[in-house]
Amino acid sequence: MVFPSKLIEDAVNEISKLPGIGKKSALRLVLHLLKQDLKTTTSLSDSLVNLRAKITYCQSCHNISDDAYCSICTGIRRDKTLVCIVEDTPDVMAIENTHQYNGLYHVLGGVISPIEGIGPSELKIDSLISRIPNSEIKEVILALSPTMEGDTTAFYITKKLKEYNLKISTIARGIPVGGELEYTDEITLGRSILSRTTYEV
Amino acid sequence: MVFPSKLIEDAVNEISKLPGIGKKSALRLVLHLLKQDLKTTTSLSDSLVNLRAKITYCQSCHNISDDAYCSICTGIRRDKTLVCIVEDTPDVMAIENTHQYNGLYHVLGGVISPIEGIGPSELKIDSLISRIPNSEIKEVILALSPTMEGDTTAFYITKKLKEYNLKISTIARGIPVGGELEYTDEITLGRSILSRTTYEV
Repeated sequence: MVFPSKLIEDAVNEISKLPGIGKKSALRLVLHLLKQDLKTTTSLSDSLVNLRAKITYCQSCHNISDDAYCSICTGIRRDKTLVCIVEDTPDVMAIENTHQYNGLYHVLGGVISPIEGIGPSELKIDSLISRIPNSEIKEVILALSPTMEGDTTAFYITKKLKEYNLKISTIARGIPVGGELEYTDEITLGRSILSRTTYEV
Repeated sequence: MVFPSKLIEDAVNEISKLPGIGKKSALRLVLHLLKQDLKTTTSLSDSLVNLRAKITYCQSCHNISDDAYCSICTGIRRDKTLVCIVEDTPDVMAIENTHQYNGLYHVLGGVISPIEGIGPSELKIDSLISRIPNSEIKEVILALSPTMEGDTTAFYITKKLKEYNLKISTIARGIPVGGELEYTDEITLGRSILSRTTYEV
């Protein structure tokens, strides 16, 4: 791509480093910004710099937070006997959006992945273990992705938690609501039969 | 969407103002930036602010340029008897990428669109007219989109240029290379028959 200006080229290169944005989309964004007034660009760039410089993480659950402890960990209406283990912040947001869960969270910051060089020590697993003794936690819910890495991490955590005599559960795998049976892959369908729920009659 | 932090919310709101980026994509970009080191964010934001503050336009063709006159207008190998009228900078880039055109350009900065309140005075049409007398221009190629607005603009420019005794042409409309005849819309197919080219035998 031949750019009419070095400034455009620099901006396109920087934007296209972001995931899912190619050079053509980056150029479209750059040309869009050029048509807006200066304030649009400055407030965008300020918000990014601010975010990156000031962001803090909750000292208890490691979720992103504006304070030392996040609003979920300090919430007086939250059920402090339940803790849900998730991979990252978007998972917390997704579960919060369901309005079906009222417990605490623990954000691992990833999953165990030998291929990417992520071992248990890179994740907030030790922090989870040390969190349990001085807490009211009775049940740990594993809400990790149903991938090889997610399953490995779940297995590792389950072993580590054995001695604390907690109830350990995992979120249900099965056919998504609205999904069609005939188009569901065999593994999911198989799991959904094995983990069938009994009707209370 | 409930955000764990005001900083995240601000950044997501700013990013999702960009065209084609919704809140979910914006969140993904924000969380990506948080995982990179500080330099990634600062160089991104610097490039945007720099771009917006320092960008200049060629005084002759109004394309984006780093100098007072762009490299195309000042290029010694360009054919200065030809000028191609386009809507905006991406069109110049697209035509340059074909390597089939060696003349000059004139960037209108939009097309006439009464619905959006864009009249001829908002565009660089007067500048085009005033450019012609003291130049070597012999042919004007209209490379505008085949839309109502594009056609209106082409018609307006053609009328304005009448008195200068120039050759005026428009880029060919027809079936795209690689396009299948049976799936081409009727208007395009109709035009491609009317504007058929004669084989030189």
